[in-house]
Amino acid sequence: MSTTPAYEELYARHRRLHHFSHLLALASWDEAALMPVGGAAARTAALAEVQGLIHSLSTDAALARLLDTAEAEPLDAVQQANLREMRRGWRSANSLPAALVEARTIAQSRCEQAWRVQRPAEDWAGHLPLLREVVRLAREQAACLAEAKGLGLYDALLDEYEPGMRAAEIDRVFGDLRTWLPAMVREVQERQRRRPLIEPRGPFPKGAQRALGLDAMRLLGFDFDAGRLDESTHPFCGGVPEDVRMTTRYSEDDFLMALMGTIHETGHGRYEQNLPREWLGQPIAAARSMGVHESQSLSFEMQLGSHPGFAGQLAPLLARHFGAQPAFEPANLQRLLTRVQPGLIRVEADEVSYPCHVILRYEIERALVEGRIECEDIPALWDAKMMELLGLDTRGNFKDGCMQDVHWPAGLFGYFPCYTLGAMYAAQWFAAMRRAKPELDTRIGQGDLEAVFGWLRANVWHQGSRWETPELVQRASGEALNPAYFRAHLETRYL
Amino acid sequence: MSTTPAYEELYARHRRLHHFSHLLALASWDEAALMPVGGAAARTAALAEVQGLIHSLSTDAALARLLDTAEAEPLDAVQQANLREMRRGWRSANSLPAALVEARTIAQSRCEQAWRVQRPAEDWAGHLPLLREVVRLAREQAACLAEAKGLGLYDALLDEYEPGMRAAEIDRVFGDLRTWLPAMVREVQERQRRRPLIEPRGPFPKGAQRALGLDAMRLLGFDFDAGRLDESTHPFCGGVPEDVRMTTRYSEDDFLMALMGTIHETGHGRYEQNLPREWLGQPIAAARSMGVHESQSLSFEMQLGSHPGFAGQLAPLLARHFGAQPAFEPANLQRLLTRVQPGLIRVEADEVSYPCHVILRYEIERALVEGRIECEDIPALWDAKMMELLGLDTRGNFKDGCMQDVHWPAGLFGYFPCYTLGAMYAAQWFAAMRRAKPELDTRIGQGDLEAVFGWLRANVWHQGSRWETPELVQRASGEALNPAYFRAHLETRYL
Repeated sequence: MSTTPAYEELYARHRRLHHFSHLLALASWDEAALMPVGGAAARTAALAEVQGLIHSLSTDAALARLLDTAEAEPLDAVQQANLREMRRGWRSANSLPAALVEARTIAQSRCEQAWRVQRPAEDWAGHLPLLREVVRLAREQAACLAEAKGLGLYDALLDEYEPGMRAAEIDRVFGDLRTWLPAMVREVQERQRRRPLIEPRGPFPKGAQRALGLDAMRLLGFDFDAGRLDESTHPFCGGVPEDVRMTTRYSEDDFLMALMGTIHETGHGRYEQNLPREWLGQPIAAARSMGVHESQSLSFEMQLGSHPGFAGQLAPLLARHFGAQPAFEPANLQRLLTRVQPGLIRVEADEVSYPCHVILRYEIERALVEGRIECEDIPALWDAKMMELLGLDTRGNFKDGCMQDVHWPAGLFGYFPCYTLGAMYAAQWFAAMRRAKPELDTRIGQGDLEAVFGWLRANVWHQGSRWETPELVQRASGEALNPAYFRAHLETRYL
Repeated sequence: MSTTPAYEELYARHRRLHHFSHLLALASWDEAALMPVGGAAARTAALAEVQGLIHSLSTDAALARLLDTAEAEPLDAVQQANLREMRRGWRSANSLPAALVEARTIAQSRCEQAWRVQRPAEDWAGHLPLLREVVRLAREQAACLAEAKGLGLYDALLDEYEPGMRAAEIDRVFGDLRTWLPAMVREVQERQRRRPLIEPRGPFPKGAQRALGLDAMRLLGFDFDAGRLDESTHPFCGGVPEDVRMTTRYSEDDFLMALMGTIHETGHGRYEQNLPREWLGQPIAAARSMGVHESQSLSFEMQLGSHPGFAGQLAPLLARHFGAQPAFEPANLQRLLTRVQPGLIRVEADEVSYPCHVILRYEIERALVEGRIECEDIPALWDAKMMELLGLDTRGNFKDGCMQDVHWPAGLFGYFPCYTLGAMYAAQWFAAMRRAKPELDTRIGQGDLEAVFGWLRANVWHQGSRWETPELVQRASGEALNPAYFRAHLETRYL
């Protein structure tokens, strides 16, 4: 007879949840990448149904007893970690009434679908009532989670994406960034003005860009037997670890947007593809957090993708797909890849000005969740903060202003800070890599990228959710999160 | 207070089932059209999970009581028809134990996935053990259904696809075909040998073929806001009525295969897109049967697609996408479209020799289900019957022989006869159309295809499952199924 019957029952239930999450992930990816517009209402209803089912399985009354019983069973360390993650998921799911979960699903799906049409049409007025409903329900969600976790409203949401992180800590880190980053953005621009730079000459046909992106994914070790690359308005990495669905978007004037976007999503994709297979379907096999996930995409896009040695790997691919150009010489290419040029769009931002976009969104969404502002206040705040942080005038521009991101229409509040946490983790990973492998930069220049992948695989990918975030950071890098590595990285690369 | 509480409860339960069927349809389409090979195991598990859920919802103990109670409620005629279809579905689902349903899902998914690799490799030996398991479970399924319905083994399966149809009736109709069809195939070939025919000159690039297929779909009224065209090894029409997912396959030597395949699937697609929207998600809103479904694809591909007047609509599209050629002149094009040339592949067969392929499969699969033969007997029987019916030698050719269809690997036994039933229904629809609209053939020649679509929409598409098949046929065409229309159609067009 089994000595761990409660744990085994929980194990089977989570495997079942994983199967439904597979269908949910696939249908959500399809909705964003392939679905014709007329399919929206039926898809919304089907997604709500399976989300409701997942919610009801996650809130089954038997779970509380099973979790308690399993605590007393003779579990090994891995099982204990899995049980800890089961309990974390249980706590999140059980803080929300089923009616709220369903209302959120419907409101978010409606708002996101409308956003795809309203954003290109600059239709902020049409978007406002849909967004207001999403925000109203996000506030209800925050109130429920805050009560269950004993946290503040915004902390309760942030904790869903970055367990253990608090707004006070974000205030400290972002407050520090605010003191030196806007000045550094200006200083780097000033320096870069003096260096010669050859612009690439387009247009760059979409087909060639797609082929280039696929080659870059191969170079970066993406497993095409376990994933695909498609297109969507807002690029993302979806699907399941066994079948990762990456998307990108193309502009024929600017191949760097799709190329670096694809390299970014490849970092997310390889993390998913290399999560621990022996535990697949269990909470312990999931990616650790949104910040750690972003640390992988930024390890690929920024730490590696904009590395002087990596430009030598990319240059021949560009020549192959677009024909040779002086702009594609490695030294010039690396200047293109590290060009600091503050702009309106977050996802196109360079790594120096990027945190300014995140600070802006964090400040607005926190005030929104806490009820200090309303949706109609967003445009004016957006304009003021863009001017303050990046010196850019965005007045009257909704498409490339406050309507540019899918996050708020999709009900994701508390997510944005993870992008900059990820940039900081990534800088810390590469600092640790260099201590372990002093020849790292030479090896990257020689095209030996396995030096990077091997470290990430052992220290991050294969760890899944084995450790809580602070312990993962400590084990991987030998110390707690230290934002000084991010500043040092920027100073080394840009000053 | 509602006077039909049981019916309303059943209505809500079927809407819920429809949502899960939506996810199942999407994930199945994706598996065939897009999924990378490494995703197979996870997808198999996820599909089995949702199929198990659908089965458990369909076999919920409360349903029997609800169905009985609803019988006594004051339902209108439409509700009564919906209740009749609910009961039909309930009877099918409740005849099979859950363990058998799950075992079939897993065995079929494994066999179908293996088939995709084994067919091109001609690996019959490797395929055999997987197919044997699928057949073993199909026999168990047949035994359960036969007991529940009081039917013979093969009748019990056939009835799942073509309610009310029996093997004795198929024997009668196919027995008749066997007496004159092989001779007609030879006679038509003899006549066609004497007429001049200009062959199209390829190659025909895949991109141009795809663009042509999309244009043909537009000509045929496919709604691209509610569907897509993609690729798969074995073309099919999947998805849901609100979002139809058609697939095709391309050969650069032969554009007619993809074009006529696409026109065929467009018939299925328009039937789905035009099912009665007011009942969507309910059993009454579903397509009537596999034979009626096939009558729509064959109305498009054969009755309309190979119509002398339709060639004039297709000709300019061919010239636009491939450049002008003498072969594309309407008169020559129609000869190409009606060329009778018996070959090894069912899905490429002309409409005269096609029923021979179906008779062969019907005779083999019936013997297989009834245990009179085993899977290892298939190749020899296949060879003998191909020689007898079409005079073709297929010995040693598995890829284009008994491994050519997805049906048996996917566990679909009792389905093949529906193709030829569909051809007969289609001939009967067009005969009825001509009685109602004597100018039909002139109007088709003038490009007024709405004359066809309007009749199909009113008499078939919008009827959904409102009537049982014999009543649908009677109402639409004024008489019961009469195979004489099919013979007359072939004689008029080919002799």
